[in-house]
Amino acid sequence: MEFENYFPVWNKLTENQKNRIQGSLIAKQVRKGTILHNGDMDCTGLLLVKSGQLRAYILSDEGREITLYRLFDRDMCLFSASCIMNSIQFEITIETEKDTELWIIPAETYKSIMKESAPAANYINELMASRFSDVMWLIEQVMWKSLDKRVAAFLLEESAIEETDTLKITHETIANHLGTHREVITRMLRYFQNDGMVKLSRGAIMILEKGKLEALQNA
Amino acid sequence: MEFENYFPVWNKLTENQKNRIQGSLIAKQVRKGTILHNGDMDCTGLLLVKSGQLRAYILSDEGREITLYRLFDRDMCLFSASCIMNSIQFEITIETEKDTELWIIPAETYKSIMKESAPAANYINELMASRFSDVMWLIEQVMWKSLDKRVAAFLLEESAIEETDTLKITHETIANHLGTHREVITRMLRYFQNDGMVKLSRGAIMILEKGKLEALQNA
Repeated sequence: MEFENYFPVWNKLTENQKNRIQGSLIAKQVRKGTILHNGDMDCTGLLLVKSGQLRAYILSDEGREITLYRLFDRDMCLFSASCIMNSIQFEITIETEKDTELWIIPAETYKSIMKESAPAANYINELMASRFSDVMWLIEQVMWKSLDKRVAAFLLEESAIEETDTLKITHETIANHLGTHREVITRMLRYFQNDGMVKLSRGAIMILEKGKLEALQNA
Repeated sequence: MEFENYFPVWNKLTENQKNRIQGSLIAKQVRKGTILHNGDMDCTGLLLVKSGQLRAYILSDEGREITLYRLFDRDMCLFSASCIMNSIQFEITIETEKDTELWIIPAETYKSIMKESAPAANYINELMASRFSDVMWLIEQVMWKSLDKRVAAFLLEESAIEETDTLKITHETIANHLGTHREVITRMLRYFQNDGMVKLSRGAIMILEKGKLEALQNA
């Protein structure tokens, strides 16, 4: 089964544990823009991305958003299975940013395996430590970095993910990634444009001077 | 041994594992204001607080600080043993806020036990999930809450910890907890004073109207 090649600790599980996972595993194809998990939903389970792109974010009471991290091929989403640990006391939303193929390991299945298997438990430890590192990086950005650097870093990240210098992304979407307002992003992008770093057009941002954006990001 | 009563999964360990912990355990008394761990130090180990108070914070390149969470009696400090997981890619500083008695479980000892024991691994999972929840709470505060609410919440928290309405704390220290500048805190406290919520004096802040601070915090 293909899943075996994607799931990192497969070979450290017993036959019985492998059977329990195989017997409950759900393969799914999900369209871009689908909410896979949020605080109101039941505990979905661990999501293993075969191909595609997920975004994890939080929402304020007023509907503002900020991206916590993104997941790509072979990444595992832990917090869609937050019920496997009592101490997870926060709610995040997971949505597909691209058409995505994934497997769902039901939370109850993994929870029971984790209880008996040190490798399965330690895998979750490493996974959570990775996401923790992402979120600590975000705190440092939000606390100590000015917004111009964060916008520059975001444009460069998008350009790397999409492998293009012409980003088809709205100012609203960038604002939702960075936890700010559309107007603020529009103002910043116009400033970038005046500086010759980007060219703005309807529905797209063209990166003209990558080097300048990189210099700003690292300044 | 007293340690057994403080360490939550003690009874789920094997005799061999118990012996390895007992054989390497270090008991320590540490004065208030001591740095127990930072990014430059070796991997110290898991710290189990018998009595006292620890503060975990991050530092910017310019020396600004923000408190991530605080630990009290019976709490375990995980990130002083960051080497037990490869995926922990960030550095935090741990200092004593009060005279503290603690035990150190050396990182190598716990790492080897965690590899073979599902309960020991799952204990770390729950611990990390708790700290993750603290940090997610912090992100929400920083992103969506105005500073007046955060200062009100901090004064109430301090008052609860110290069990007094007269807080002996400098404006600089509050700024370091909340990730801002002393001047900003001073301005905010003067505003609180004008509003009758606190009375400022040399080296102390007296809370006069707890109800008003609570209303502000929850507004």
